[in-house]
Formats: sequence, structure tokens, C-alpha cells
Amino acid sequence: MKKYYTMALSTIIGLSAMSIHAKTYVLTDIQNGIEVGNWKTTGQNYTVEQQVLHGGKQEGSKIITITSPTGLTITLSPTRGMGLLHAEGKGIHLGWKSPVTEVVNPAYIQLDSRNGLGWLEGFNEMLVRCGYEWTGHPTTIDGQIYSLHGKAQNTPASYVAVEIDEKPPFAIHIKGLIKESTFKKADLQTMTQLSYVPGETSFKLHDVLTNHADYAHDYQIIYHSNFSQPILEEGAKFLAPVSEVSPFNDYAKKGLKDWTTYLGPTKGFDEMVFNLKPLADSKGNTIAALVNKDNNKGVAIAFNTQQLPVLTLWKNTDTLKQGYVTGIEPGTSYAYPVNIEKAQKRVKQIEPGQSVSFDLTYSLLSDRSQVQSVENQIQKIQGTTAVKQVETPIAKE
Amino acid sequence: MKKYYTMALSTIIGLSAMSIHAKTYVLTDIQNGIEVGNWKTTGQNYTVEQQVLHGGKQEGSKIITITSPTGLTITLSPTRGMGLLHAEGKGIHLGWKSPVTEVVNPAYIQLDSRNGLGWLEGFNEMLVRCGYEWTGHPTTIDGQIYSLHGKAQNTPASYVAVEIDEKPPFAIHIKGLIKESTFKKADLQTMTQLSYVPGETSFKLHDVLTNHADYAHDYQIIYHSNFSQPILEEGAKFLAPVSEVSPFNDYAKKGLKDWTTYLGPTKGFDEMVFNLKPLADSKGNTIAALVNKDNNKGVAIAFNTQQLPVLTLWKNTDTLKQGYVTGIEPGTSYAYPVNIEKAQKRVKQIEPGQSVSFDLTYSLLSDRSQVQSVENQIQKIQGTTAVKQVETPIAKE
Amino acid sequence: MKKYYTMALSTIIGLSAMSIHAKTYVLTDIQNGIEVGNWKTTGQNYTVEQQVLHGGKQEGSKIITITSPTGLTITLSPTRGMGLLHAEGKGIHLGWKSPVTEVVNPAYIQLDSRNGLGWLEGFNEMLVRCGYEWTGHPTTIDGQIYSLHGKAQNTPASYVAVEIDEKPPFAIHIKGLIKESTFKKADLQTMTQLSYVPGETSFKLHDVLTNHADYAHDYQIIYHSNFSQPILEEGAKFLAPVSEVSPFNDYAKKGLKDWTTYLGPTKGFDEMVFNLKPLADSKGNTIAALVNKDNNKGVAIAFNTQQLPVLTLWKNTDTLKQGYVTGIEPGTSYAYPVNIEKAQKRVKQIEPGQSVSFDLTYSLLSDRSQVQSVENQIQKIQGTTAVKQVETPIAKE
Repeated sequence: MKKYYTMALSTIIGLSAMSIHAKTYVLTDIQNGIEVGNWKTTGQNYTVEQQVLHGGKQEGSKIITITSPTGLTITLSPTRGMGLLHAEGKGIHLGWKSPVTEVVNPAYIQLDSRNGLGWLEGFNEMLVRCGYEWTGHPTTIDGQIYSLHGKAQNTPASYVAVEIDEKPPFAIHIKGLIKESTFKKADLQTMTQLSYVPGETSFKLHDVLTNHADYAHDYQIIYHSNFSQPILEEGAKFLAPVSEVSPFNDYAKKGLKDWTTYLGPTKGFDEMVFNLKPLADSKGNTIAALVNKDNNKGVAIAFNTQQLPVLTLWKNTDTLKQGYVTGIEPGTSYAYPVNIEKAQKRVKQIEPGQSVSFDLTYSLLSDRSQVQSVENQIQKIQGTTAVKQVETPIAKE
Repeated sequence: MKKYYTMALSTIIGLSAMSIHAKTYVLTDIQNGIEVGNWKTTGQNYTVEQQVLHGGKQEGSKIITITSPTGLTITLSPTRGMGLLHAEGKGIHLGWKSPVTEVVNPAYIQLDSRNGLGWLEGFNEMLVRCGYEWTGHPTTIDGQIYSLHGKAQNTPASYVAVEIDEKPPFAIHIKGLIKESTFKKADLQTMTQLSYVPGETSFKLHDVLTNHADYAHDYQIIYHSNFSQPILEEGAKFLAPVSEVSPFNDYAKKGLKDWTTYLGPTKGFDEMVFNLKPLADSKGNTIAALVNKDNNKGVAIAFNTQQLPVLTLWKNTDTLKQGYVTGIEPGTSYAYPVNIEKAQKRVKQIEPGQSVSFDLTYSLLSDRSQVQSVENQIQKIQGTTAVKQVETPIAKE
Repeated sequence: MKKYYTMALSTIIGLSAMSIHAKTYVLTDIQNGIEVGNWKTTGQNYTVEQQVLHGGKQEGSKIITITSPTGLTITLSPTRGMGLLHAEGKGIHLGWKSPVTEVVNPAYIQLDSRNGLGWLEGFNEMLVRCGYEWTGHPTTIDGQIYSLHGKAQNTPASYVAVEIDEKPPFAIHIKGLIKESTFKKADLQTMTQLSYVPGETSFKLHDVLTNHADYAHDYQIIYHSNFSQPILEEGAKFLAPVSEVSPFNDYAKKGLKDWTTYLGPTKGFDEMVFNLKPLADSKGNTIAALVNKDNNKGVAIAFNTQQLPVLTLWKNTDTLKQGYVTGIEPGTSYAYPVNIEKAQKRVKQIEPGQSVSFDLTYSLLSDRSQVQSVENQIQKIQGTTAVKQVETPIAKE
């Protein structure tokens, strides 16, 4: 029989057996009745802190912040599917400004609202995991609304732990378990992990999706990674090795010729989306980047095309208040509704008991040489392959 | 980078720069991480108290009560969009009895439920702000349910402050910010304010709706103000200067000849709604009132037709348990669905950065002379203008 | 005017006037502002404990556990409509294992999700009350989704009390009030009661549904009682006196010949549902049971066919991870959508002010003689009446 223990706030939970060489702080564990509220630990060159937010629609939302004075400050929210709110380092902000300023507790989100666009009432993160049961633009099939970008991002984590390695380079790992478990429907459980070495200007995601059911299940995932000023600006560039680019819809057609460069905040721009086929090295490793006009600020996302075969570029260079932002979105799918993705064979299956991993490295680029180095990597992968521009959208919503 | 401070409960926050001559108690401020739970302040002839409610669907809901022994007791709920639950003074209750007895936390409301009538699972207030993104009866347009009376009322306030003037007449102001901020959709923010001078038997609302987006946006608002016993009774009267009355629908046609008088609790009555065109003085000021049969109890609402050009009268004189209540509802719109209101040109636009104000004064009338005085004001505005009775509803739902 | 008192956690509230010979602990009372968090009381051979759960989607959910070392351990959740999570005694577990492992707070449930199947995101109980406003499979009528099995189970209790009799046999009663109160729609209030005598291996439910409205209202209820291992296994049997069995749908037709016996966990089985017409004694009393292959473990449900005239048998002998479970479901209705139940005259009406009671006794059977005794009772009621097998489903969804 299950036992439930309720811990006093700010209580620190002891060592886990899982990582012998790491100090483990379990902040949430529904299995063992552990729940920690405001909490903080401090090391030589870092602090990790959990705060419970209050007021408005963020009542009860939690955020965890890693602060490394010489490196990055990274903030994520266990309540919002371990979504990464923003990171910052070397004076450069990674993230964007949404009209949604609260860290909205999913209790106040109705995903089916606005014909499946309720997700937009909470969207303000630097990284949102769009999945895993389904993702993409909303659609209604047999009366069921497949709401925008699935349910994971609006699912509070069932297990949250901070693990701090006791051996160099003393990496900090924040783990969070997102359960998409519905009787008769799915038992997809994703153990997300963000790893960061204090002092560094990059961090890694290592997410493991496991199908706990006895039946194979479709899955989709888009790592919806969003950036704005100071990197995004007029003349900023998108860089990635690709074999093909196509406009997501008719509106994006007119942006095809300039698809790698950005406008400044532009009233009436709304959004243009491009579907990319990324190239990779022989192991599937590749990299995509956003760099500013002067080539001295940027952000790069390294990922593997065996895990995440397609790449969506979301250019939302509308006004600042509207949300001036671009999304670099490695995924298993493009952003079309699930039925289109399914018809076009981009919806994957995960077998009973099977796990699939997704690894991404986000790097802040804070000077010209770092930017150049990433450009070199990208050019090396691109090699002499021409970028095929497909004029016609591959699907119609 | 945003900072989040979590304050201990019952902590009082210092003076705001906004109102130099007022003592300001910030009870909620998501921007600065302030959140106060149970709280109370007492003055010479008043107390202001915030309580956090628990149990059932009211878990976590907050209410603020102003109590002035010689004047009014006024209760509102920050969790429910600063809606005003009830007021009371001179032994007269302003408000009504709904079968919904809890102060329902919007976390437990699904507005799209019941084909857009989920709002009814929480409705029990004396004053509900119906808006601002849309209002009116629900309708489905292009798959999106425009749920009954919009989202504001089921939005917890992001900023709540009690300001107490330090100069006569020592007015108490309760401010609450309701944000309807959704990426791509709207950034309508309404700073509501209720002002009350202890000892008096009236209070004022001053709401400022601001469009924080870079695009013009439609808005609608209905100040859905609801009263029952002891004012509402058989023979009670509705008074307002109007140029025209029309039935909302076919069912209301049969009530047209008696539209200004009320029945007692009447089984099977359900509701009759009348659309009114209010008259006003040269500055747009006007007044509507409900008075009892004996003309010695009543409630009056003063408003301005430049802000709120139309007036809905909702006669819901069904049985007591069903909710015996009448609504006096100054607004920009009637209660038709948004597409009808739009077609009939009653949906307004607010420009980027623009603010629009709504000012209403609610007065308790506790004797014959107060009732007479309001009747006189109304007659003066009505003058010799005849009330045109339109027999046919101006729209069909 | 209503008063709200907020009690400190773990505060015990004094004697109620309702049950003079019982000690009453009020744990939740929205009317009087009472709310108790973690709480425990201990007697000679029992403890009763309330715990507030945290983490994931169970944030804020409460459970109450009665533990009687020589008898049963029974766990229910006030937050989830007083649903009964599981019971255990003599080493036998009553309940089942759902992929949903959390005690999901209804704040995180959207019943209309998945075209009315959102209920499945929280379903893991041994007993769920499916009703009372409606029940059955979801359907959409005039745009309204009648979501699976109604709203009661996802309604937090407005009043919760533990009453402990001070006279032999010192029964423990857990009361919980579930309000389905929606303006214009319903005011159905159900005072649920679970009664248990420490040391015994059975417990009783006594639920009183009252129509607080001034209008008659339809109601439906299914006592969805779910069991699995160690009783459910290959060769386990369902026993009940019935006059007729029919398959719920075409898929169940092929299971008709073996309808009283069970398979072990069977991949691809999904679910077969059978509609039963229970027989009863002259007072309407009857009994249904699940017994294991060896006839030495079982569970019996005694109920009254005047209260609950029909019986649904849900055989969900799919794999363990998928949820290996059978439901024995006395009810007013079968599990067809409300419009079918209505057309076939199984939807009942409750008059204004009327109360209807539902009484069920759940008994753990832990040896051969207990099983035999129940079999004897069932055979006695069945007598010589033949079981009519209807080949064709009585309705099509």
C-alpha cells in the first residue's frame, strides 16, 4: 500500500541511491510523499533555489533558478512541465518577452479554450517541450480537440530532484518527471534533465521518454526554443546546415528569399514559419544558431538528427509588445496538426517499455570568436550541399 | 531579469509612490513577488480584512471585506476578478442568493463547459464585470466557443492593493489588476478600483481598461449588477430614464407591458431580458434604480452613457432557491453573442496604449426621501421624452 | 451575512449537534469557514487520518485513511468527490492499478478534454460515484459535451466530517457533501457517508441525494466499483442473481457465452461490458460478487434494486499496466450516453426538496466459507429463474 509523507517546507531530503557520486535533493516525489517549498542550496560558485510563486494565475507555481555569477543564471518551472523560462549570462538574455508575464499554473489553463489555443495563455518560455502525446497546431478529429502543442508543458512534474556532482566538473542536474498517464490513452513518462557546470555558458538537456504502457504509442516532440533581444535584431541571422527549406504556408512564401535573416520589430509581420531539413555529420550531430548583426552575440543549439530529424524556424518578428521572438525548433515533427504529420509519416512510435532520448546543448555565444566557431561548424556540415528552396508548402492546414 | 520575492503572510508592505497622501497596503503583486494571505487593518470607523477561503471549490479563494459599522459592509473577491460579492448597510442587503454558495476558485471553473455556460458554476456576485475581450451569451465561431460573459470574472487579480487616504474624507480604495493577456490574442489589462468613504452608504467603481498591445482590439463590458430581497419583491419597480425598450427575445415580448415592475418569486418565470436605450444629462450622466414596493428601500447605479451607452434589464424573478434576482446592467453591449453585437456595431475598439475608464456609483437607498430624490433625478433626465416600446427583438440568437 | 473563519491547520473542531452520541470532527465546512489540513485521531483499534498530498497533479488533494489493524484500511479522497481509492484487509487488496498513480486534484482535470473523456486522466479509484447530474459515455447534444460519468467525482467536498460513535459497536462515519450546484442548471447535493466498524471486514455507504432546487431534475448514478488482483485472475468468477444479460455493444457479443468468468491479463482484450437485470429478494435486496478461482478470496457488494435497479459488469481484463480490472456497477443507469438512457426510460427524476438514498455494503471475503456464504445468498435469490441471454445490444452508441 502506498504511503504518503508530507514534509515540512524547506526540508532537505537525503542522498538518493541513483547517483552515488552526487548529492541529491529531492524537491518533489509524489511516490514517496515528498514536497519541498522554498528551498536553497549554495556552493562555491553557484546557488540553486526553488521558489513558490503567488498571485494572479501563477498562484502555487514553482520556479528553480541556478545562479552562477561567472556563468549563467537559468530559471525553469517544475509546475509548467519543467519548461525553461529564461537564461542569462555575459549580459545576454536568452528568452523573450511575452505579453504573458506570469508563470501560469496549469490549473488556470484550459488547453481546449480558443478552439485549442488555450496554451497561448501561458506561453512565455525560452524552451517549451511540445509533446509528447501529440504536438503541432490544433485540430479537431472525431470531436476531440488536439490542442496546440500537447499537454506536457502544462503538466506539473511528479518528481523533481537537484543532483550536484561531487567530482569535477561538479555539474548540477535538475531532473523532472512529466507524466502523460491517462487510463486507456497513454502512459508516456518523460524524465527531463538539465545539466549545467557552474561557470560555463552552455547547458545540456537530456530527456528520456519511456512508454510505460503495454502498447506501442505514437509520440511527437518539438523543442520549441525561443530567443529575442539582444541577439534577435534587424540583420540578425539564422544559421544551420540544411538541405531544404520550404514555407509552412502561403504567407511564408513571400519570406522565402530572405529566410535566413531577420527584420527588426515589424508591425503587422505576425509570423512566418519555415520547415527545414537539417544536415548533420556522420553521427547525426548538427547545430543551429541565431547570431546578431555584428556577429558578436548568439545562441547555438546542438542536437542530433537521429533523435530530432526535422527543424522548424519560427520567425515572429512582430512588435516588441506583441512578442518579438524567433523559435529554433528541432523536433520529430513540423508544426502541422497531428493528422497531417501522421499522413506525412513524421509521427513516430515508441514500443512498450522502450525509451527514447533527446539530447540538446544550448550555448551562449558572447563574442566574435565563439560566433565564428559555430559558423565554422555549420559550414563544415553544410559543405557543398546546396539548399533546395521548395516554393510550395508541403501541406495545407 | 525578473525577481520574485515571496513575502511572509500578513506582512504589510510600505507606502506606494502612486498616492502620496494615502497609506498603501499591497496584498498581491506578481511583478514584485508580493502575496499576503489573511490580513487586517483597522481605522477609526472601519476595518479592511483579507481572508483566504478553503474547502470545496473555494479552496484558495480570497475575499476582502470593508466593514464600516455606521455605513456599509462590502465584500469582493480578488480571486474572482475583483467581483463584488455583496454589500450591506442599514439592514438592507445588496446582492442575491445563488444556488452557488461558494466563492469558486476559477481553477475549478471550465468556462467552455456546458457549451460555454461554465461561468454559471461560479456566478453568485452582486457585481460581475462581463468582458473585456468579449461578453454576452455564448456562441461558437469557427470552432471557438466564446463562453458566457468572457474571462475577466474568472481571472485572479495580478495586483491587489488597499489604499487609505490620509486626508478627509479618508476614503478607502481597493485596487485590483485583471490581466487578459494571451500571446497573439490580447493584452487588455483592467485596473479596477472600488472607493468607499467609511460611514457612507454609497461606493464608487473606477475601472481603467488599457490596451497594452500594439494593435487595436475589440472590447465589450457589461457591469452585471444583481439585487434581490429585501428590495426586490412583488411590486418593486425599476426606474431609469430611457428612450426605448425592446424585448431581448420572443419570451420577453409578453413582459413588455409590465417591464418596469416586478413579480414576487414566481415558479416557471425563468428570466425576461429587456434592452434599454438610456437617456442622460448633457454630460452623459444618468442613473438607474431598483426600489421596493413601499418606496423606502432601493439601490441606485449612477453611470455615464459616454462610457456605457446601453443598459440591460435582467428580470429573473423565479423562485428564491432558483435565484430570485434582477440585474441592472450598464454596458457597451447588450447580452447578445459577440457576433450579433459586432454586426450591430456595439463592439468597441481600443487603440494601442489607449485607456478607457468606467465610472459607476452604487448607492443604497434606505428611506423614502432617498428613494424620492433618485426618482426626481430620473424624472428630470426623462423629461417629456416618451419611452418607445419596440415590440420585436432587435436580434435573434 | 455569511462569516468566514479560517482555522489553523490540524485544529480539531468541537462536537456537532447532529449526532449526539458521536464525537464529530469537522474537517471541512465551507459554510462556517472550517478547513483542517493534516489531522489524525486514534482510538483503541483504529486511526483516522487526513493528509494533504503534494506534487504533480495531486497538489492539494486530500485523502482520509481509516486504519484498523485487525480489520480494513480504507482510503478515500474528499478532493475527488469522496471517491474511495482502495481498501485492504487480510492481505487482500480491494482496488486496482491504473496508469494514473496520482490522486489528481480536479483543478488539473478538464472533463471536456478528449471529446468528453478528460475524466480518464484522474480515474484510479476502487469506487467512483458516476453522476448525479448525468452519467455514462460522453455525448454531445446541442453543442454541450456531456462528459464521461458526470461531474460529482471531480468535485471537492464542501463539508467533510468524521463521526465516531461513542456506543458499541463504535462505528466510524466519514461524511462528505458533494454539491452539483450551478445557477439555472441544478442544485443536486449528495451527502455521502462511509461507515465502518473497526475490526470488521465490510463497510457501508449511505448516500443521500437531495434536490435543493424548486424544480424536478433528472438524475443518474452508477456506483462504479473496481477490483483487480489478487481476486481478479484467470478463472475468477462474477456472481449475481440476474434475469437477463446483454452485451453493451457488438464487441461484447463474442464474450457473451463466458460472461461470468474472467481471463487473466490479456493483451488486446480492451473491455467488454454487459448490461444485467439483477434479481432481488422481496425487499429489493441483492448482492453481486467477484470471487477468485480457488473460491477463497472475494468481494461482495450488497445493494437494493429499488434504489439501484440495474447492474453493469465491466470486464477490462487487459494487461496489468493497461489496467487489469473489473467493474461491478450497480446503478440507476447503464453506461450508455444520457440521451440513450433517457430514451430508454432509465433516467430518474428527483422532485424539489426530495431526497433519495443509496445504500451499499462492501464485504471482503477472505476464506472459502465466506465465499460460499455469499454464493448461497446469490443462489437463493436466483432460485430457478433462468438467465436470459439477449444476443443483440439494447442500444447503439
